[in-house]
Amino acid sequence: MAYEFKTTRRVEFSDTDMAGIMHYANFFRFMETAEHGFYRSLGFSVVMPETDPRLGWPRVHAECDYKKPLRFEDLVEIHLLVAEKRSKVVTYGFRFRKLNEEPTIEVARGALVIVCVAHQPDGKMSAVPIPREIADQIEVAPPELLERV
Amino acid sequence: MAYEFKTTRRVEFSDTDMAGIMHYANFFRFMETAEHGFYRSLGFSVVMPETDPRLGWPRVHAECDYKKPLRFEDLVEIHLLVAEKRSKVVTYGFRFRKLNEEPTIEVARGALVIVCVAHQPDGKMSAVPIPREIADQIEVAPPELLERV
Amino acid sequence: MAYEFKTTRRVEFSDTDMAGIMHYANFFRFMETAEHGFYRSLGFSVVMPETDPRLGWPRVHAECDYKKPLRFEDLVEIHLLVAEKRSKVVTYGFRFRKLNEEPTIEVARGALVIVCVAHQPDGKMSAVPIPREIADQIEVAPPELLERV
Amino acid sequence: MAYEFKTTRRVEFSDTDMAGIMHYANFFRFMETAEHGFYRSLGFSVVMPETDPRLGWPRVHAECDYKKPLRFEDLVEIHLLVAEKRSKVVTYGFRFRKLNEEPTIEVARGALVIVCVAHQPDGKMSAVPIPREIADQIEVAPPELLERV
Repeated sequence: MAYEFKTTRRVEFSDTDMAGIMHYANFFRFMETAEHGFYRSLGFSVVMPETDPRLGWPRVHAECDYKKPLRFEDLVEIHLLVAEKRSKVVTYGFRFRKLNEEPTIEVARGALVIVCVAHQPDGKMSAVPIPREIADQIEVAPPELLERV
Repeated sequence: MAYEFKTTRRVEFSDTDMAGIMHYANFFRFMETAEHGFYRSLGFSVVMPETDPRLGWPRVHAECDYKKPLRFEDLVEIHLLVAEKRSKVVTYGFRFRKLNEEPTIEVARGALVIVCVAHQPDGKMSAVPIPREIADQIEVAPPELLERV
Repeated sequence: MAYEFKTTRRVEFSDTDMAGIMHYANFFRFMETAEHGFYRSLGFSVVMPETDPRLGWPRVHAECDYKKPLRFEDLVEIHLLVAEKRSKVVTYGFRFRKLNEEPTIEVARGALVIVCVAHQPDGKMSAVPIPREIADQIEVAPPELLERV
Repeated sequence: MAYEFKTTRRVEFSDTDMAGIMHYANFFRFMETAEHGFYRSLGFSVVMPETDPRLGWPRVHAECDYKKPLRFEDLVEIHLLVAEKRSKVVTYGFRFRKLNEEPTIEVARGALVIVCVAHQPDGKMSAVPIPREIADQIEVAPPELLERV
């Protein structure tokens, strides 16, 4: 059972914009990087071509609160926390922490709400229960971790 | 006085991901495209190098609700609405509508909360009132537009 | 028969990097935008899900020469020219011209070499002749257009 | 003195496109990642805000030859080699090698030609000699490394 995952990224030149900071949309790419690393840490990949019907994990909601900017070559920790787990839906919280300054500071918080879907033969997607071998490995993080400011 | 702006984009190959749909982070790039087009429609640019101190418009919050996927070559209308206006902060709502199907359907909704800041000589940013020549041109959209499902 | 196509793009905030100019990798996204617009102008899409076997158009070579930077909100024309046409391979040349200055100036030149492939059942790709209904519509641009400095 | 640098990247979901492979423009982002890591390995950053005049390293040419696709979660080594060194210009070669298969295979080769420039007070850039403390650390790779197929 796992309720969290941490990974780090260095902000690249192509992540920045002309304001000299990481472009705000790229925080969402970094959240996804942590999410997929979380799955790998549990022994599976978000892409499961062999399942029938083929499963997908589209997001139905994404959000981010920005507190401090990230700059080129900043080293950032992305901390994923399982915030909610339902039959067909998982909500992740994310904490972005800049590591290359003492003390390290939280620069942003995000969240993703993800639905497990099956791809139907007609190209449509329908929500389905998260496969048990995955659901059994995921648990909600302790409230004190989720609420910590 | 303006409370809305519409622009269209065709989903490009580089906007898609291996799920065959527009990557979810790109909706945030499209929101910004509409925001900056809104400013141009009012006669100014979000980049104002000649102001002293130099002004910036960082986002403090961004969110998106995804209802239907967008696919390659879909034509999408991004409809910006001024949702809230305060001295130093503007909140925009966004409606994404896929135009290349009849009837057209809303595929996503988003929001951006943006603060007007001045860049200080020491590199820090501090929130400042939105310049009057800009603030005077922006008004909040009628409630029925904001609430319409 | 067509040997050229022109489209325009406005440089967006998310296209820029901290050097204040369009990030160099984005010129390749813009080339592809022109390429796919060229196909649409001929009445087809680069994505042809109904062909059997499914066709693809991977690039085997891409290059760009940068002369002048593009900046935020610059209006740029991307001019595609068919530079070479062989049974299974097409080479496109691209001219990037900044339109929001008089006289307009060429800021970059690029090229893409594209192979027509069929996706085999085992997941591999093999080069195949370009379908006749497409090949018949494409011709090499006059040499004076290709050589013009 | 250094003539090479290696770094690795895992292909992320947002690096892929609807063809199920890494989008071709992203190879150029990866080249730059290796280039900037090379500079860090030599003890400096490509961004040098304190130099006067401020230096920049725009690319004047970029190219890539694609042999095999990269897919989601592939682990790729980006191998930078100094191919040519002149007073104001450096040319780097890049080898992309997919590490998560035995034997590892080269999937792409790239090159970047980079000019050292000084930003003038009027906003223009002019080519200048590479600062000696940097130039003294960089040497051209042995020919057998550059020519190896």
